[in-house]
Amino acid sequence: MTRGKFITLEGIEGVGKTTNVEFVKQHLQKQGISVVVTREPGGTLIAEKIRDLLLQQNSESLSEQAELLLVFAARAQHIKHVIEPALLQGNWVVSDRFTDATYAYQGGGRAMKTSAIEWLEHWVQGHLKPDLTLLLDAPVDVGMARAKARGGSDRFEDERNSFFERVRRAYLLQAELYPERIKLIKANQPLIDVQHAMVESMRVLLR
Amino acid sequence: MTRGKFITLEGIEGVGKTTNVEFVKQHLQKQGISVVVTREPGGTLIAEKIRDLLLQQNSESLSEQAELLLVFAARAQHIKHVIEPALLQGNWVVSDRFTDATYAYQGGGRAMKTSAIEWLEHWVQGHLKPDLTLLLDAPVDVGMARAKARGGSDRFEDERNSFFERVRRAYLLQAELYPERIKLIKANQPLIDVQHAMVESMRVLLR
Ligand SMILES: Nc1ncnc2c1ncn2[C@@H]1O[C@H](COP(=O)(O)OP(=O)(O)OP(=O)(O)O)[C@@H](O)[C@H]1O
Ligand SMILES: Nc1ncnc2c1ncn2[C@@H]1O[C@H](COP(=O)(O)OP(=O)(O)OP(=O)(O)O)[C@@H](O)[C@H]1O
Ligand SMILES: [Mg+2]
Ligand SMILES: [Mg+2]
Repeated sequence: MTRGKFITLEGIEGVGKTTNVEFVKQHLQKQGISVVVTREPGGTLIAEKIRDLLLQQNSESLSEQAELLLVFAARAQHIKHVIEPALLQGNWVVSDRFTDATYAYQGGGRAMKTSAIEWLEHWVQGHLKPDLTLLLDAPVDVGMARAKARGGSDRFEDERNSFFERVRRAYLLQAELYPERIKLIKANQPLIDVQHAMVESMRVLLR
Repeated sequence: MTRGKFITLEGIEGVGKTTNVEFVKQHLQKQGISVVVTREPGGTLIAEKIRDLLLQQNSESLSEQAELLLVFAARAQHIKHVIEPALLQGNWVVSDRFTDATYAYQGGGRAMKTSAIEWLEHWVQGHLKPDLTLLLDAPVDVGMARAKARGGSDRFEDERNSFFERVRRAYLLQAELYPERIKLIKANQPLIDVQHAMVESMRVLLR
């Protein structure tokens, strides 16, 4: 059995990750690939409970360190119970966010030290990295407007614009550091064009 | 304002930690010390939610890594919102378990690498360590019999005896490594004698 490929979708709020995860799934299925769609934080029973802790507003503030540790606790469950078993069985895994989001939100947004994230990434993931990351990029106000139109808000969406500017910049830095893995997709264009760009970026993996 | 002292009670299930945390509190209060009693995992709103995740039985197993990360996520909240503010205000803090329990349960019981625990301890705690740790020690069957008599059970209490033998051994190793800080209290004796030994061990701190 050939090991499946691991694709992640990344980007700030409202750029179209959840919309396009479905598109990627259907595109891969048309090539006869069996696909597991999942998301972070979450993806398993316990990881979704941890997601609730991360997103809910409490009277008590969540410390930056606790936030980062919860993110990786959920990720450890996700890898063990969903991602690794699926890849081993030859499925492709498409995840709505993964570790680049940690570098972007906790590293960029919260300005936490990259060295702590790196230590946790290596300890939890070993050699597991996405084979391809589609980074949907758009100006912060575009993404926020789309997300707001959807209604509701969580602990992250309540952050100020400057927070998301740092998140976006950290995502773009990741793309510069790992140009082979991370493909930048302009998300501030009609959905059909976004999806055309995604198909182009997936071509190498499908050969 | 003089910084308060930080005392922890440790030991396997049923040795009398929760019983004696109350005794320690009253003993200190008699000397005019104001005391904050707390526990781990837990001690804050969010940390108690994390405690629930750690203790509850789920259809999904909790990975060792996720368990260790959740323990330190709860600890980060506990230090930031309870322990540090209380010590800064001159209160003494008495906690039912702290980081020695991580070395004992995750390091000993689960046989996880000490280096990971050390990295997390240093990252989350900086220089914060207990000033005194009262390690209540008794044979595993004694502790288990007392805990069982209390009824109910959680994810840890369902472990086998060999698990608790490793936990006890790891606790005793901690006591050997840090003899200045950790005082070994024989818990397999009448409560009055246990408490007499605790008073003796607290004497240095109260001078
Ligand atoms: N290219 C596009 N042009 C216009 N609207 C779009 C485009 N892509 C997605 N949208 C719309 O923007 C909104 C947000 O999209 P979506 O929920 O997929 O974003 P997301 O990246 O998953 O956001 P979040 O980070 O908040 O989960 C949706 O209403 C979606 O229909
Ligand atoms: N020295 C003692 N002799 C006899 N019984 C004791 C003694 N100390 C405590 N007990 C009893 O043992 C039981 C367990 O005590 P306690 O709940 O304080 O233990 P614990 O260390 O907090 O356990 P756990 O780890 O499960 O929370 C209680 O019923 C308590 O009254
Ligand atoms: Mg989404
Ligand atoms: Mg107890």
